[in-house]
Amino acid sequence: MRKVHVTAVGTSLLGNSSKDSNVKKVIDELGLENWERMSFNDDRQRKIADNFNRIKGVLLEYLRDKGQGGSAELDSLLSAMKRFGHSKEEVYVLMYTTNTWNSELAGEVIKDYLEEQGIHGEKTEISSISSEESFYEGINDLFDKVIKRIIKFKEEGDEVFINATPGLKPETTFLSLAGLLAGADSIYYKYQEFNNVVSLPSLPITITPKYLEWLIRFAESGYTLSNRRAKELGIPVHSLEIRSLAERKGEDAYRLREWARKIVDMYLPNGFHNYLPNGFHNETYKVVVEDKVEAEFQSEDDAYKFMEIKRKEGKKVRVETPDKVYFLGP
Amino acid sequence: MRKVHVTAVGTSLLGNSSKDSNVKKVIDELGLENWERMSFNDDRQRKIADNFNRIKGVLLEYLRDKGQGGSAELDSLLSAMKRFGHSKEEVYVLMYTTNTWNSELAGEVIKDYLEEQGIHGEKTEISSISSEESFYEGINDLFDKVIKRIIKFKEEGDEVFINATPGLKPETTFLSLAGLLAGADSIYYKYQEFNNVVSLPSLPITITPKYLEWLIRFAESGYTLSNRRAKELGIPVHSLEIRSLAERKGEDAYRLREWARKIVDMYLPNGFHNYLPNGFHNETYKVVVEDKVEAEFQSEDDAYKFMEIKRKEGKKVRVETPDKVYFLGP
Repeated sequence: MRKVHVTAVGTSLLGNSSKDSNVKKVIDELGLENWERMSFNDDRQRKIADNFNRIKGVLLEYLRDKGQGGSAELDSLLSAMKRFGHSKEEVYVLMYTTNTWNSELAGEVIKDYLEEQGIHGEKTEISSISSEESFYEGINDLFDKVIKRIIKFKEEGDEVFINATPGLKPETTFLSLAGLLAGADSIYYKYQEFNNVVSLPSLPITITPKYLEWLIRFAESGYTLSNRRAKELGIPVHSLEIRSLAERKGEDAYRLREWARKIVDMYLPNGFHNYLPNGFHNETYKVVVEDKVEAEFQSEDDAYKFMEIKRKEGKKVRVETPDKVYFLGP
Repeated sequence: MRKVHVTAVGTSLLGNSSKDSNVKKVIDELGLENWERMSFNDDRQRKIADNFNRIKGVLLEYLRDKGQGGSAELDSLLSAMKRFGHSKEEVYVLMYTTNTWNSELAGEVIKDYLEEQGIHGEKTEISSISSEESFYEGINDLFDKVIKRIIKFKEEGDEVFINATPGLKPETTFLSLAGLLAGADSIYYKYQEFNNVVSLPSLPITITPKYLEWLIRFAESGYTLSNRRAKELGIPVHSLEIRSLAERKGEDAYRLREWARKIVDMYLPNGFHNYLPNGFHNETYKVVVEDKVEAEFQSEDDAYKFMEIKRKEGKKVRVETPDKVYFLGP
């Protein structure tokens, strides 16, 4: 049984090391001032990519010299290991960075440093969040690359500890919540102010059964519902919208958000599809534009995209599944 | 049905206003430099208390002039109201500050400003967190003063929105999690980077039934269990300890944490006590020191404290409830 620690890796290492003379030399030479706050679309991200291995070497040297104090992520992780009595041999670290070169750089250095210390782990990348749209992508990514890994770890009998110290607040809040749903055992945080690791109350939670039932019924009905149809099915779409589990599409349609589908899938990993008598994953989605079938799709996503295009052209459009019809526009 | 917004109030107003000439005059005069980062035991907190109304007036003036941009809390709150289409009339704000004078000051000014804008609300204070010990107190306080209010709001049919923008990360993570357990409808966050409010996936959650059963069985057995007794009852105390729901006390005893009791109470507000055939709230706790009864208590907490004192004196000690005996020391 491993002790798996899940942790975001930000760029604190880059900030902390900026004052080190060897690191500063590289920063000055390449014009990477304030690289810890460099935005994802900063041209200088390319500079980091082009000099990746060289900078990595200098930073690793810095970390070897400085120890865990050189990075907030390392500091909280190693402090927690000490606090919980986890040995290097039994620990396994799942790190996630954002898909930007500065974040990637910090992650690689920390991963290598941990390996040198005899602590194994893996690293993954999450879409960086820079707009409302990309927030949804980032959360979905966190789901696919981190939450699903937690489920696997738990299936393999590991204990899972979430390090809530690094990372942005909304992502960490989501990670904690979805992580507990996925079976994580503990959430911890290291206060800088008093140099101590605290364990948050880490409740074993599950989705409220009636909501789960609604979400399943929603998914079963093809992911998109008209107001009227939702009423017939007894699904409170307004409540799902407030909870950001569904979103309004057009005048009279609600669509299940991607993360809600992921949650449903996660929650019933073995039994979910048995709940769906129509086998919705295999349904054909017929898109009917102005009373003429224009295309058929295997994937509801593709059908939806096509429908949206037609709707934006101002056309009346509807989608037909084998036994249901939904109007989505204009 | 009100739209209740729950929000921490930090000291961003104090920091933002420091550059304003009128505010700066007061800061300079009273020696309150960096008052937004003043620690709870800073002597200058007293200075704020002694000049409370005067400073409050100057800050309110600043906010009237500056508008929502003057405070991160106001900014996220008012942006969310706009985003969700909540009118001033239907909104009610539950604010919480920490029990320090600088935090209190910011809270009072913001509350008054909101009232002037026609937005009603209430304010409460949470123990400020400055050590591991006070972290537990702070979380318990958050439970009593905020989570229990959320339960009330939901009972009255209100919609509850948690503003996860201000506040420290561990508190906000706990607030989000416990808030959803208490029935909150939505968690939102305002990104400064792209000036947008996002809704986090706000899952309606509940405690996993088997854990709830364990917690109830634990509570029913008098809050403190020996390892052997826990095994007999089938309660996985190790897992509860990792989850920070129980803590180890002495060599061979586990104690249910206060927040775990609160959670159990919250979770079964109407039916809980029916689950407890022994009526544990009315039991007498007999503390036996070195085979002689030394005291009887109505409250398990008092009995426990007494027991700990005796244990620290190096004495063998046990507690007896009407039908069980627990050894706690030496």
